[in-house]
This record gives sequence, C-alpha cells and structure tokens, in this order.
Amino acid sequence: MISNKMADLVAGSSLIRAMFEEGKRLSKIHGIENVYDYSLGNPNVEPPEAIKIAISEILSEEAPGMIHGYMNNSGYEDVRQDIAEYTNKINGTNVSKDHVVMTCGAAGGLNITFKTLLNPGDEILVFAPYFGEYRNYASNFDAKLVVVPPDTSTFQPNLELLPEYINEKTKIVIVNSPNNPSGVVYSEKTIIDMAKVLKDKEKEYGHSIFLLSDEPYREIVYDDIKVPYLLNYYSNTIVGYSYSKSLSLPGERIGYLVVHPEIEDLNQVMSSLNVANRILGFVNAPSLFQRVVAKTLDARVDINVYKKNRDILYNHIREVGFEALKPEGAFYLFMKTPIEDDVKFCADAKQFNLLLVPGTAFGCSGYVRLSYCISYERIVNSLPALKKLWDLYK
Amino acid sequence: MISNKMADLVAGSSLIRAMFEEGKRLSKIHGIENVYDYSLGNPNVEPPEAIKIAISEILSEEAPGMIHGYMNNSGYEDVRQDIAEYTNKINGTNVSKDHVVMTCGAAGGLNITFKTLLNPGDEILVFAPYFGEYRNYASNFDAKLVVVPPDTSTFQPNLELLPEYINEKTKIVIVNSPNNPSGVVYSEKTIIDMAKVLKDKEKEYGHSIFLLSDEPYREIVYDDIKVPYLLNYYSNTIVGYSYSKSLSLPGERIGYLVVHPEIEDLNQVMSSLNVANRILGFVNAPSLFQRVVAKTLDARVDINVYKKNRDILYNHIREVGFEALKPEGAFYLFMKTPIEDDVKFCADAKQFNLLLVPGTAFGCSGYVRLSYCISYERIVNSLPALKKLWDLYK
Repeated sequence: MISNKMADLVAGSSLIRAMFEEGKRLSKIHGIENVYDYSLGNPNVEPPEAIKIAISEILSEEAPGMIHGYMNNSGYEDVRQDIAEYTNKINGTNVSKDHVVMTCGAAGGLNITFKTLLNPGDEILVFAPYFGEYRNYASNFDAKLVVVPPDTSTFQPNLELLPEYINEKTKIVIVNSPNNPSGVVYSEKTIIDMAKVLKDKEKEYGHSIFLLSDEPYREIVYDDIKVPYLLNYYSNTIVGYSYSKSLSLPGERIGYLVVHPEIEDLNQVMSSLNVANRILGFVNAPSLFQRVVAKTLDARVDINVYKKNRDILYNHIREVGFEALKPEGAFYLFMKTPIEDDVKFCADAKQFNLLLVPGTAFGCSGYVRLSYCISYERIVNSLPALKKLWDLYK
Repeated sequence: MISNKMADLVAGSSLIRAMFEEGKRLSKIHGIENVYDYSLGNPNVEPPEAIKIAISEILSEEAPGMIHGYMNNSGYEDVRQDIAEYTNKINGTNVSKDHVVMTCGAAGGLNITFKTLLNPGDEILVFAPYFGEYRNYASNFDAKLVVVPPDTSTFQPNLELLPEYINEKTKIVIVNSPNNPSGVVYSEKTIIDMAKVLKDKEKEYGHSIFLLSDEPYREIVYDDIKVPYLLNYYSNTIVGYSYSKSLSLPGERIGYLVVHPEIEDLNQVMSSLNVANRILGFVNAPSLFQRVVAKTLDARVDINVYKKNRDILYNHIREVGFEALKPEGAFYLFMKTPIEDDVKFCADAKQFNLLLVPGTAFGCSGYVRLSYCISYERIVNSLPALKKLWDLYK
C-alpha cells in the first residue's frame, strides 16, 4: 500500500532494525554492560560546555522573535558571513556569505545539492568503501549511484579505475574524508590527481562534473593529520559540513554548504539551493542552532577520547592477528575479515556479544566496520571477545 | 546547468523574490514605516515566555548528550507519548506514541507523508484556495496536484464538485483548516460530508484515499470557533501539525504527524514515515525543540493580537466597500478584487505602498490575500491607502 520505493527502503532498513533488536535481545540475556555494540556512529563524547553557554547568552541577549523566527531560506546572513570568514581563516579560501547555505545537517545539505544538480538518470560516483546512505539520497532524485571499487591497499579513492567509471551521465563525484567507514583521510596527492582526472573528463564530455565533499568528520582527526580543503583544488566543488560530530550535536540537525565562488553558474546554483531548502521541506536550518554555531566556531569535542579508543582498539586487533589500516580520522575502524564472507563473520561475532557492521553495507565485502565512539571501558571489556572471534578462524 | 525541475522552480520563486525586492525599493523611497507589507505569513507575535523557561530548565536538568543526541528517527519516545496524551485529552482520540512522528515542521511532515504514500503519477487533491507550496511538494515526488475549484460563497471545500475530481489515481486529499489564504475554518458538516464522499470513492475504486490535514493554524482561531479534529471522522487520516504559529517558532522547524490507529497498513505506514524522515535528510526533528514543545504543550502566543488586527482590518475594508468573508482563524484575510485581474490589482496597489498577494497564487483568481501578522500600528496607518485603492476603481 505504501509507495513502491518506500516498500523497498523499509525492507532494507529492517536489517538495521534487526541488528538493533539483536542488541536489545543480547543485553537482556547478558546484561547491557556485557554487549559490545560497535554498530552505531553515534557520538558518545559530550558536547563542549561552550554550547550551553552560547544558548544562555543568546536567550538573554536577543529578542525571541529574532532567535526563533523565519529568515532567508539559506540562513541568517550574519551567521553565513561568520562561517565564511572562519572558513577563509582556516582554509585560505575566499568565500563570503553569498557562498554559504545553512542546512539541516550534512544530510540536508547533500539532498538540496542533489535536488539542485540532478536530472533523473544522472550518475553519482562514489568510492568504495562509502557511506550507504548516499544510495538512498540518490534514489530520492532517481539518480544512479555508481561505485568505483576500492583500493584495499590504502583505501584512498581508486584513481586508476576512476576514468573508466565516468561517462556523459556523470554529474557528481562524492568524496567523504575522513572516511566513513575506513577512517582514512584522503591525501593531498589524491585530491590533486582526482581533480586532474575530473578536469580532463569535463573537457572530454563538454559539461561540468561536480565534486561534493561530505565532511562531517573534518575535525575528528588524529596525529596532526591535515585534511585538504577541496575548494582549493577544484572549482566545481561544493563542501557539505555538519556540526553533528565536531560538537556532538547530531540531534540538532545543523550544518552548512560552502560553494566554490567559481562554480559553473554560481547564481543559479545558490538560488536553487535556497529554493530546494524550502521545497524539500527543510525551509531553513534550525534557527537557534544557527546562532549557536556562529558563537562557537572554535569549539570542539575532546578528540582525545576518540584517539584513546582508537589506539587501544587498533593495537589490540593487530596484536590478535586481524588486518586493518590505522584510522587517521572519524571514529571507525575498518577491519579485514579472516573469512571472505563478512556477513557470516558478523553473525559469528554475535556469539561473543560483538555487534559489527559488514563491509558489504559500504560496498566493500571482506571487511567489517567497528564504530569506536563508545566508552573506553566497554572497549577494554570487549578485547577478550575480539580475541575469541579471531581464534574462531585459526 | 541546474536540474530541469529546479530551473522551473527557481524561475517561479523569483516572483516572490521580486515582491520582496519591491518592498525594499519602496521602503528606501518612502521609509519602511510607510510601506504596508501584507505579503508575508511570518508570525509577528513573540513566542511565549514559557519557551525560554523550558530551554533553561532542560539545559540545567538534562545531560547534554541526551538533549542534543540522536534518537529514533521518529523522535524521542517520551515526547511522542506526551503529545499523544495531550491530543487524546483535547480531541478525544485514542492514540499513543506509536502513532506520532516528530517532524521538521509541517513542511517536513507533509514531505515524509508524500514519500510514504505516493508513486509517480498519483494524484493529490486540494481545494482552492490552497497553499501554493503543496504544488512543489507534489513535484518532489512526481505526483500530480489536482485543484477542486472554490466555492466562493463560503470558501468551504466544494463538495459538490469533489466526486468528479476523484479517480483511480487519487491517493491523497489535503485539507488545510484554518485555511491559508481564506482564514475560513472548515465546519464539522463539511468534514462529515467529505468523509462520506471519500469512503464511497474508496469502495468504488477498491483502494484507500488518504486525508492529510495540514493544521499549522489549529490554535489561531477567534470567537471560540471549533476546529474539527479529522481523526474523529475518517480512519485513513494523517494530521500534520507545526508549532511555527501557535508558539511563533517558525525558524526552529518543529512539528509532528499523528496517524489514525486504524489507517490501512498502520505498521508499514509508521515504518515508512520513520525511514522517510531519515532518507529525505531530515533524519529527525531538531532534538532540543522536541523536548521544549513537550514541556509547553499548553502554551500559546497571545491570539488577541491577531484578533485585534483582524477586526480593524476586516471592518475597515468592508466599510470602504470591499467584499470578504470574516476570517475565523489563521492571520489571513482573503478579499475580492473589484476588477477581475487580481495580478493587476496587486500591481495597482503598489502605488499606495500596499504589498498584497494575488489569489491566483492560491488557485483562486479575483481575490487577494492580506497577511495581517504585522503590527497594529502599521495596519492603522495603512487604512487610508486601502481606501484609496478602492477609490481607484469607483
């Protein structure tokens, strides 16, 4: 009775639901503290104190009608200008409020970008492993998601294969770095080489190919690794950002897009993003939190919590025998499964109360994702279970 | 270069932009206090003090991770239960949290409902005059918006014509009461008769026809008029609500859907609304404001401000000679134009610094909409201009 598309999507999402239910079932039997749920990308570090302070200040200093009212569908002009200036300061760009759209998280930003750029049948390229939700966003606009196979030696985008995956229908290439699920940061060389391929292909096909950088994990990086800012490498670029992870505000749905000042048809693109925000039903990014993030541009959650988790988990699984690249950012570890069938591996893991997500969900079989945004103590307690899981295949 | 659909939508929305720019131009010449902008449906009454108090309490009593974190895509369970119980108390319904989805305003609620129910080519019925944005929401899902012509004697839905506008493709009928733009509240008799027509047509075609009630103005009513609650009249009903007007929080994007417990395929519908919230990019309704509205269920803006505006404006335009029904709710007055061409009438009105929206934008030519959610003083000052406008056609 529901729409055909949704019937498929509901069936698909029932797998996630099934895992969630499995977690609840195991918790009932073994106690919640004895279930090691590595399946959810839900930040466990508290938002910085600056958020609470900012909200209190805004409530006491500004008129309620101003705080909670309508504004331009692209967001408050002063907030957009603050974000533009901060971006310029940190990344050496040259953008203004006219290149910024406040969005309902990165998810909202990606959807208004798709609505702006895509005709039905257009193709979106992603590099495996990739965040599975892109497939659903593509389906919203009847676009086709095309997956470039992984380079499992580095988990950098597979640029050797890239050219053959581009055709006259390719409209958008999505880059997600620090990457969910691999934890890899795409290097500057990767970005330069990728930009070169895309520029060549733009010439070959005589139309623009847009680079869409999905960066909710930009600030979640370790060991002083630099994340290249894509606006500095390719002009047909849109960067989507979210405060969900850097400020642990995933429920508040606040983020933004930055559009390259020299993108093709800048004015049309900005007008369209504005209108798309309205007609897709977002209308505007939540107003109080627009003002909050403008007041807390330098604030961050305590990254060391995630780093400590990464270190103990990574060191342990390597010691035990698993193969994995050391995550450089985000809060995910992407581990090679000792058997080919990653779905079976995840099923096997449940006997040790370990909840993992198969790499197949990210277009990369033979791997599993561990989200280590859980308590350090829980990770410590899970280590023997991970050892037992390895021993199962010896 | 942008998508074909968006190119059309951007062109369409430039008319709104043109009016906005015209207002700015007139303000520059004549001073902002001498421009009578009746074009925007932006609440001018301040949010109740209860909002600020609720935010402060939540920030001091609850853990930040709980306030700003992810939850089920349908919203916090306790918030949904509170809203269900409040709905039962006020409207005599029998719903629980399992029938409530928290949404990004009514716009978000309508879009996830469309995503859930519509296949491309399905038809959505609206009754003229209707909120123009429905056309864009329909376009998001390649559905066809079918307009039932107005009954201008009452501006109740034209039920005589309704049967001939329903066919085997009709999936949703939208009801918007108190109505934007007419200010009319649909009577209980209207709803009972409409439900009868729909039930007969469901039998005739052998499939469900869903009633979608868009109710952002439910609490903005005058003279103790009752707004029938549609769940009490028709089982295939979904009610979309927003706090944008009742609490003057339009920027915060907070609202909800209530689904009839006996709707066809309840479980499928609820699962689909949940998944649609996620994949359309809303993910969930903003989390802090979910908690805020649960704490302020009885709070309202001061309706008397709007009532006073309605009374002076309505009395004046009738005295001058215009024809209009007295608005029973919302903050709109729908006035007959003394010439047939309402677009020309709006152009003429600008010479008196009056900004009005032609009825054509609501599928009802020969009328104009005046949004009286502006200051009382501005309305008083505009009265001579309205008189001059009438005199122009004497």
